[in-house]
Amino acid sequence: MNLSTRLRALGQAAQKAAPVLATLTTVDKNHALLLIASELIHATKELLSANLQDLAQATHHGVAPAMIDRLRLSQESIEAMAESVRVAAGLPDPVGRVLTSWTREDGLEFQKISIPIGVIGIIYESRPNVTSDAAILSLKAGNATILRGGSEAFHSNQAIAACLERALLKAGLPAAAIQLVQTTDREAVRILCEMDEYIDCMIPRGGKGLIQMVKTHARMPVIKHDDGICAAFVDASADLTMAEKILLNAKCQRPSACNAIETVLLDEHVAPAFLDRVGKALLEAGVTLYLDAASMKILPQRLKKSFPSQLQEAREEDFRREFLALSVAIKVVSSLEEAITHIASHGSHHSDLIITENKHHAEKFLHAVDSAAVYWNASTRFTDGGEFGFGAEIGISTNKLHARGPMGLEELTTYKYLIRGEGQTRR
Amino acid sequence: MNLSTRLRALGQAAQKAAPVLATLTTVDKNHALLLIASELIHATKELLSANLQDLAQATHHGVAPAMIDRLRLSQESIEAMAESVRVAAGLPDPVGRVLTSWTREDGLEFQKISIPIGVIGIIYESRPNVTSDAAILSLKAGNATILRGGSEAFHSNQAIAACLERALLKAGLPAAAIQLVQTTDREAVRILCEMDEYIDCMIPRGGKGLIQMVKTHARMPVIKHDDGICAAFVDASADLTMAEKILLNAKCQRPSACNAIETVLLDEHVAPAFLDRVGKALLEAGVTLYLDAASMKILPQRLKKSFPSQLQEAREEDFRREFLALSVAIKVVSSLEEAITHIASHGSHHSDLIITENKHHAEKFLHAVDSAAVYWNASTRFTDGGEFGFGAEIGISTNKLHARGPMGLEELTTYKYLIRGEGQTRR
Repeated sequence: MNLSTRLRALGQAAQKAAPVLATLTTVDKNHALLLIASELIHATKELLSANLQDLAQATHHGVAPAMIDRLRLSQESIEAMAESVRVAAGLPDPVGRVLTSWTREDGLEFQKISIPIGVIGIIYESRPNVTSDAAILSLKAGNATILRGGSEAFHSNQAIAACLERALLKAGLPAAAIQLVQTTDREAVRILCEMDEYIDCMIPRGGKGLIQMVKTHARMPVIKHDDGICAAFVDASADLTMAEKILLNAKCQRPSACNAIETVLLDEHVAPAFLDRVGKALLEAGVTLYLDAASMKILPQRLKKSFPSQLQEAREEDFRREFLALSVAIKVVSSLEEAITHIASHGSHHSDLIITENKHHAEKFLHAVDSAAVYWNASTRFTDGGEFGFGAEIGISTNKLHARGPMGLEELTTYKYLIRGEGQTRR
Repeated sequence: MNLSTRLRALGQAAQKAAPVLATLTTVDKNHALLLIASELIHATKELLSANLQDLAQATHHGVAPAMIDRLRLSQESIEAMAESVRVAAGLPDPVGRVLTSWTREDGLEFQKISIPIGVIGIIYESRPNVTSDAAILSLKAGNATILRGGSEAFHSNQAIAACLERALLKAGLPAAAIQLVQTTDREAVRILCEMDEYIDCMIPRGGKGLIQMVKTHARMPVIKHDDGICAAFVDASADLTMAEKILLNAKCQRPSACNAIETVLLDEHVAPAFLDRVGKALLEAGVTLYLDAASMKILPQRLKKSFPSQLQEAREEDFRREFLALSVAIKVVSSLEEAITHIASHGSHHSDLIITENKHHAEKFLHAVDSAAVYWNASTRFTDGGEFGFGAEIGISTNKLHARGPMGLEELTTYKYLIRGEGQTRR
């Protein structure tokens, strides 16, 4: 059987499972989730040994240590995976909510209710825990899921998927509720993208290459999870104590996160005081500053002498970079408007921030910046399903439609209208 | 300048106009809309003469009379176009609604607000009034619009677009708020589909070929408006007086509409009585019946004798047909479950209907059928933005994500989160 035929069989099975999953009770779904959590814990040994195979292969291929770290499973990370499943079981069921309802004058009753999307394809890279995390949220929302993980985590993903399958069978749910594509062939991604007769929505999570490939080939709606080029604008009236606290958090707490700050725009009036104080704090925290000509000129000589290896001249392209590291690009701007324009043309519409004591500037920024989350005087690191209070997240959508920003259980549903009548006809 | 360069210039201009449109006041938008209405009325002569060119060309090319009818403008249709614009001016502004809001324990305030999508591409066929109807709804929702009409309405569309442009300039709005692609080259559609750096969302309205082309090539989200293969299931306990009334309305009122019924599924217990009575009524209304073997066998001899030219043997593919005409495919099923399964595998997830006095059957059908609108004892013809109470519609979405079913002003917006703090950082 060739790859295309095999993948289409997966699609057909998922499509067949979808209506069964859509009508499951909350109790049934939660029961299955708790069984999944047990299976993961019971299979700790198998999971670790499968993971060792992936780690050995990655080391053999000279994969970067940071990547190997993301690939690694441990007893703790397996327990965390199981705990995520239990948390999902405890969350409210997103299916069957009455979103709105109304009655026409002729008595026709309209009800808009939330329903599962149907079949969701998830294409991801690296971290094997996504196999479980993504699949269980999708299941809780009543969807069938087809997973395509990265080749570097092939054995780990297979071992996790085997746990899920065992639990589904024990729970009496269709095994096709969660299916893992069992190949490392990249062609599989292209074929899945063309299966719009089976897959209702594709969620790619990963690097630019993967996202671009899915966007180009997909015939179904795509909810992409890609880069965060997040900017902070420090306004003339900013409280620098607050700016220091927020920026250290937003840049240094987890530099590899998509909601970390990559660009700092400085109002020209605040630039000298900012660089003297917050610039110093960032340098002391180990951050490399990519400075535009104006900010390089302003930077105090003593800092230039103390941190020579952490100072770089910023090129234009550094303001479109997702450093994913302890680096930040800094630019002096002459006004709030220039900051807004810079963010529109250089940012990725993910999370952006204004630090100011000027309420009018804050409101102007909040409304003018077209990003999923726009902040006033708070860290962009809050862009996260857990921090938003969603209980769990499948990721941070960089789409503008359907789901924008943190994507939780509700965003894994869609809606339909139920209309109840007594023989009404249209005039 | 080649086609790609010209289209990209359009995209750039739209992208530049989008933030201006996003921050317009409701008063400004409504003022512009009322100017558009006036321009359309003042330009009646020019519009009619441009339309005559299209009609002459269509006649010369032997286009079908039904198509020519859809292409034709008249003083009345121009007045109706202007009236639609005035209605849009009177509707509530869909931008800036607070969709939800909450405050965290640490005082961080979250607000989810509606905002315009940005730049919307609309690719459509035939009816020139879509040029105005679609563009003005998109404008009211604060979006920039790029229109690509069918070549058969080329001159009419240009004349309407010229009215819109004059009104935008008078209103002091960017001319790029509404732009018409000035070419009949089909290649333009493919190029637009690849312009995801400028166009946030593509809305294709038209035949299967057009939808397929957009789905295949588009790199941005697509909200498609395609076929309605709507089914009515007549349950064993159906009230046949009601069934007759509803089906005559749903099939005959406007057979060319996507919300007209194309398939009738009959519970085997009701089939004889139904065919005797409602079958007769449909035949008398001029409807051609495509009957499966079981229903052909049951159909009373007298009807076979009286309406020989309106009876056909149904082939399997007739149950996947959008007749768009006074024809309907009829099939006998043994249960509610068989009806639900038939609709899942043959329908287009648009609008489906159960006629029954059995509340349990009704609720099972309402919840199990995965269509944008699911009806109990009412005509599917109600699937329409106006009938839903949306005030206006850009069409009926057959997407599952973002907008499903009638798509009004609210569906032309998306959202973002505004987060207001006092220096909060993430733990």
